[in-house]
Amino acid sequence: MSVRSREIHLAARPHGEPTPDDFALVEVELPGPGDGEVLVRNRFFSVDPYMRGRMNDAKSYVPPFAVGEVMSGAAVGEVVESRSDAVSVGDVVLHQDGWREYTVTEAARVRPVDVDAVPSPSAYLGVLGATGFTAYVGLLDIARLRAGDTVFVSGAAGAVGSAAGQLARLHGASRVVGSAGSAEKVAYLVDELGFDAAFDYHDGPVAKQLRDAAPDGIDVYFDNVGGDHLEAAIFAMHDFGRVAACGAISQYNATEPRPGPRNLGMVVQKRLTIRGFIMVDHGDRFADFSRDVGRHVADGSIRYRETFVDGVENAPRAFMDMLRGANIGKMVVRL
Amino acid sequence: MSVRSREIHLAARPHGEPTPDDFALVEVELPGPGDGEVLVRNRFFSVDPYMRGRMNDAKSYVPPFAVGEVMSGAAVGEVVESRSDAVSVGDVVLHQDGWREYTVTEAARVRPVDVDAVPSPSAYLGVLGATGFTAYVGLLDIARLRAGDTVFVSGAAGAVGSAAGQLARLHGASRVVGSAGSAEKVAYLVDELGFDAAFDYHDGPVAKQLRDAAPDGIDVYFDNVGGDHLEAAIFAMHDFGRVAACGAISQYNATEPRPGPRNLGMVVQKRLTIRGFIMVDHGDRFADFSRDVGRHVADGSIRYRETFVDGVENAPRAFMDMLRGANIGKMVVRL
Repeated sequence: MSVRSREIHLAARPHGEPTPDDFALVEVELPGPGDGEVLVRNRFFSVDPYMRGRMNDAKSYVPPFAVGEVMSGAAVGEVVESRSDAVSVGDVVLHQDGWREYTVTEAARVRPVDVDAVPSPSAYLGVLGATGFTAYVGLLDIARLRAGDTVFVSGAAGAVGSAAGQLARLHGASRVVGSAGSAEKVAYLVDELGFDAAFDYHDGPVAKQLRDAAPDGIDVYFDNVGGDHLEAAIFAMHDFGRVAACGAISQYNATEPRPGPRNLGMVVQKRLTIRGFIMVDHGDRFADFSRDVGRHVADGSIRYRETFVDGVENAPRAFMDMLRGANIGKMVVRL
Repeated sequence: MSVRSREIHLAARPHGEPTPDDFALVEVELPGPGDGEVLVRNRFFSVDPYMRGRMNDAKSYVPPFAVGEVMSGAAVGEVVESRSDAVSVGDVVLHQDGWREYTVTEAARVRPVDVDAVPSPSAYLGVLGATGFTAYVGLLDIARLRAGDTVFVSGAAGAVGSAAGQLARLHGASRVVGSAGSAEKVAYLVDELGFDAAFDYHDGPVAKQLRDAAPDGIDVYFDNVGGDHLEAAIFAMHDFGRVAACGAISQYNATEPRPGPRNLGMVVQKRLTIRGFIMVDHGDRFADFSRDVGRHVADGSIRYRETFVDGVENAPRAFMDMLRGANIGKMVVRL
């Protein structure tokens, strides 16, 4: 069968912070699936910080979105028609055709998920999906967390940060501190997620607040923010400290290149390692991640929140709000 | 016997570039050695970039020099009196009491060197000593050079850089490019040391010159300079590129913290690793280094130059000139 579907197209490349005019809601007629294809009705899709980079016409690890074309990203949906033996109607599957209500795609490009393991299959977009996996790889493989480390996570109430902080505690960190953008988030980190300390970066210089939160210094910095957070972390680092450079949300809407930290000389003095990473390079760890974090989520030792925004037409707003930090935990568009 | 010795004291902490007034030439009377001690007449000593940091009153991996006290650093001298069975009069030894004509020190703190292996024992301050070892560790253990890599070395005509570039070639780099501060140095790199390309950073923006020298990009950057060199290297890096952060001589005389590279976001996109190091942490590799580089120096596959300045009274001038890049190869004070 063919279906009418609404989807979000990139209307224009943003200059600085995206505006509603950079997006277009477009109704399309999808043909039924061909041989080996499935028709999926999306139930949830992701809006993630990295997508801001894809809106620019810049070379990166993923190609840019094309102006006038549908955007994309991780999504969870239900198979409503299948012309593949590998996937059945009714299967709930994870795939990469987000930002739309329906998709027709090759069966090989969807992966069934276990809906009984979680309260909502949207968890496969977050704590059990790309963001949780990012936290796992960054903390364990990139920062090489060791028992006894003091760990600082920025953007700690976000999808990646909240998983990273809890994983640090579960893997033997002696102290876990986080930064976030509101008093509510700070309370969430300390009261619900078990962070030892947290602060609102609006409340004063990050370097000073980090010194108060981790007076004996830090060993690992999980960087989701960049900018003054990275500079503060370098100041606070012990010798041989490690930075997992995951993202720099403070910079994504910048219209001019921003200078880096003024204390990079300490990288030599303190023998620091700053290592950038992207989870897609670490697929060989996904099974470990799924087993470990799946167990922690099942037994409640890793908690998570999701911020839902309903309707494909509201996806641009969800995305813009996420870039401003309106979400706690994973920002998800629910259809 | 007691001896009269002249030595250089730190007279004042420099503000920015050191001036002659920051140093004092002081004559002292040294007592003869006590039990287990030796009296050494220095023949050569090092002036190295890292000593600029020790002139500041700042916490670092080595304690600062004290105002009013003698400075120190690596030196090679001849034992003229020994009250230890371990060391004989006439032995040529490496030790850490530079910036002076004589020293009395514990025999356990000196290490005899093989004078027959090299034209001048000053080589143990350079290519066979701390600077050569720094190049070895930085290139092989920190940057993890792989066969086929394109390698960029800044400060490439200096003691560390010239060793790093030649080691890269000997360890299978497919292309080695360097930056230096004069046409004479550039010619030295290409004509004598076998660099594939080199440029004078005064001749134009580093990023553009690096693009011309390594049009297909780089895999490894051995950073002796920092600042715009680091920024240019990050622009030129392939995915999974590695920076061995050895030093930042462009910053050592800065009176204000200088902003870091404006393209640090690329550390994530390109999955780069920036790793600071100091050779003193890697003592377990010194035997490998001595064997490998000793062989290369003996058979001429690693070449080196030294810039000699005569007389302890001229050590401050040698040091200040070295910070300005007046030397080719290792800057050594000869007594």
